[in-house]
Amino acid sequence: MSLTIIGTVAFDAIETPFGKTDKIIGGAATYASLSASYFTKKINLVGVVGDDFPKETIEMFQKHGINTEGLQIKQGEKSFFWAGKYHNDMNTRDTLATELNVLANFDPIIPESYQNTEYLMLGNLTPTIQRTVVERLRKRPKLILMDTMNFWMDTAWDELMKTLKLVDVLSINDEEARQLAKEYSLVKAARKILTMGPKVLVIKKGEHGALLFNQTQVFFAPALPLEDVFDPTGAGDTFAGGFIGYLAKTGDISFENMKNAVIYGSAMASLCVEKFGTERLQNLQINEIENRIREFIDLVQFEITLS
Amino acid sequence: MSLTIIGTVAFDAIETPFGKTDKIIGGAATYASLSASYFTKKINLVGVVGDDFPKETIEMFQKHGINTEGLQIKQGEKSFFWAGKYHNDMNTRDTLATELNVLANFDPIIPESYQNTEYLMLGNLTPTIQRTVVERLRKRPKLILMDTMNFWMDTAWDELMKTLKLVDVLSINDEEARQLAKEYSLVKAARKILTMGPKVLVIKKGEHGALLFNQTQVFFAPALPLEDVFDPTGAGDTFAGGFIGYLAKTGDISFENMKNAVIYGSAMASLCVEKFGTERLQNLQINEIENRIREFIDLVQFEITLS
Repeated sequence: MSLTIIGTVAFDAIETPFGKTDKIIGGAATYASLSASYFTKKINLVGVVGDDFPKETIEMFQKHGINTEGLQIKQGEKSFFWAGKYHNDMNTRDTLATELNVLANFDPIIPESYQNTEYLMLGNLTPTIQRTVVERLRKRPKLILMDTMNFWMDTAWDELMKTLKLVDVLSINDEEARQLAKEYSLVKAARKILTMGPKVLVIKKGEHGALLFNQTQVFFAPALPLEDVFDPTGAGDTFAGGFIGYLAKTGDISFENMKNAVIYGSAMASLCVEKFGTERLQNLQINEIENRIREFIDLVQFEITLS
Repeated sequence: MSLTIIGTVAFDAIETPFGKTDKIIGGAATYASLSASYFTKKINLVGVVGDDFPKETIEMFQKHGINTEGLQIKQGEKSFFWAGKYHNDMNTRDTLATELNVLANFDPIIPESYQNTEYLMLGNLTPTIQRTVVERLRKRPKLILMDTMNFWMDTAWDELMKTLKLVDVLSINDEEARQLAKEYSLVKAARKILTMGPKVLVIKKGEHGALLFNQTQVFFAPALPLEDVFDPTGAGDTFAGGFIGYLAKTGDISFENMKNAVIYGSAMASLCVEKFGTERLQNLQINEIENRIREFIDLVQFEITLS
C-alpha cells in the first residue's frame, strides 16, 4: 500500500571518533524512504532541495521505488545543510552548522498521484509544515506517523500540540518524551502523551532499544549490541521508515503487528549505523535484513513455562 | 541444591526523591539471600555483623530458609554502615557515609555444614576475601558467581585479576564492564572480560536491562518499565540472588537456562525497587513473582515468521 514520506532531504557533514565526511547525502526523509524501500516500492517523497543536489541521488531514490514527483528542486538555491560532531560515547553530539537554505520557505506540494496515500510519515520538520501536509491530503490516510524533536517543544509548543492531535503514532526519543510530558518516568510520560492525540507512542532509546505503548499495552525491543557504532546519524529516521514501511507492506496496523514493525525498524537502524551516512541503506540485501531479524529473535527469546 | 552467599550484612540510611530512612537493614548478602530464598531454602549465609544487628532480622533470615551459622556476630563491635542519597534520575547517587566497622577485619568462616555447597555467590567485597572463601571450600562448587565494583578496579587490580580466574560467572554493571575491559563497546568489553576467567558475563544496565554473554552467544533481558522506582538500593544484588537462586533450584547451568535465570533475576529486582530497602523482598508471594514474569514475557514477545 502506498506510503508518503515528508521530511528533509539534505547534505550532512559528519565527524565521529571513526572518521569524518565531506558533504554527504542526508536528511530525515532520505533515511526514512530508503529504509522503507526494503518493504514497499510505492513510496512518495515530499521535500525540497536546491539545484546543488545530485541528479544521481534522485535517480538512486527512483531505483529504490521512491517516487520523487513531490521533491521540489529550487533553481539557484542551496539544499539544507547540517554539520555535526559526535562525542566518544556516540550518544551526544554538537551541531557545528545548520544552514536552512531552501528549507526556510518550504511549502510542501502534494502531487495528484500522492492523493489517496494510505500511510503517511511526517518526518521531523516544523509542526506547521507537518500539519499542512495532512490538510492537503483530501482523504485522511489509514495511519499517520509523526516524528518530532525537542527544538519544536522549545520554540513551537502550540503548533506542535495542534499537529499532535492529528496523528496516530508519535515517534520520539526518551529525553523528548520526558520534555513533552514533563514527567521523568517514561511510563507516566507515555500515559500523558497518549492523551495529546497519538494512540500509539514509540520511545526510541538509542543503544538501549525502543518502547512501544498504547493505552493498555507495552512492548520493548532491544537494540542489537554492536561491536562499533560507526555513525548514528539517521538511525531514528531509519527506524521510523522501517517501522511504517513494514506496516504498509503488511497492511496490518494492530498493536501485535506494530511489535513486529518495531523489530524491523530496529533491525534497519542497526544496519544503518554500521557505515557513514546512507551508504549501508543504499545497498542492502534482503537476506542481510532477515539475518538481522534472526539475531533479534535469538537475542530476546527465552522459554519459561509457568504453571 | 545448596547455595552459599557471602557479602555484606549491614545497615543503610537511604535518601531518595520519595523520602528518607533511618538505619534500615541492607547489604549485598542480605538482598541476594532474600531474593534467592524464593527459589531454594538451602541457603548458607557468610558474613559478619556487630552486636547492634537486630536478632529479629536474623530470625527473619532463618524463616526464609537462610542458614545463619556462617554469620559472625562480633560482640562490642558495630555493623557495617552505608548512607547514600540518590539524585532525581535515580541512576546516580552520592555516598554520604561509609563506616566499615566489623568489616575492617572480616575473616570469613565456612561452617562444616556449608562444605559441599554446589552454588556459590561472592557478593561485592574485597577480591581477597572473595578468594579466601573459594579456597576454604574443600570441593569446588558447580558454579561460582562473582559480583564486584569499580572501587576494587581502582584499588585492588591484581587481587581482582587473581579472583576473577576462579569464577564461572561475573556480574557487573555497564560502567564497570567498560572500566574492567578498557573498552567502550560492551560487545568488545564482554569479549575481553571472557578471557580473564569467567565463562559467562552478566552486564547489568539498571533501567536499561541486562545482557548475558558467553563466548559465542548473547541474550538481552529488558528492565520492566516501572511507573516509579522508589529505591534502587540492592537492585543489583537482588538480581544476582534471583539469578543464582533460580540456577540452584533448577540445577541446570546451561546458557539456555541462564537466560531464564536473567529473567527471574530481573523480575526480583523490579519488585525490590518498589519499596525502601528490603521491605518488598521480605514479604513476597510466589504469585507476585509469577505475575511479574508474565509481564516480562508480554513485554518482549513477538511473532515474526521468516521464510
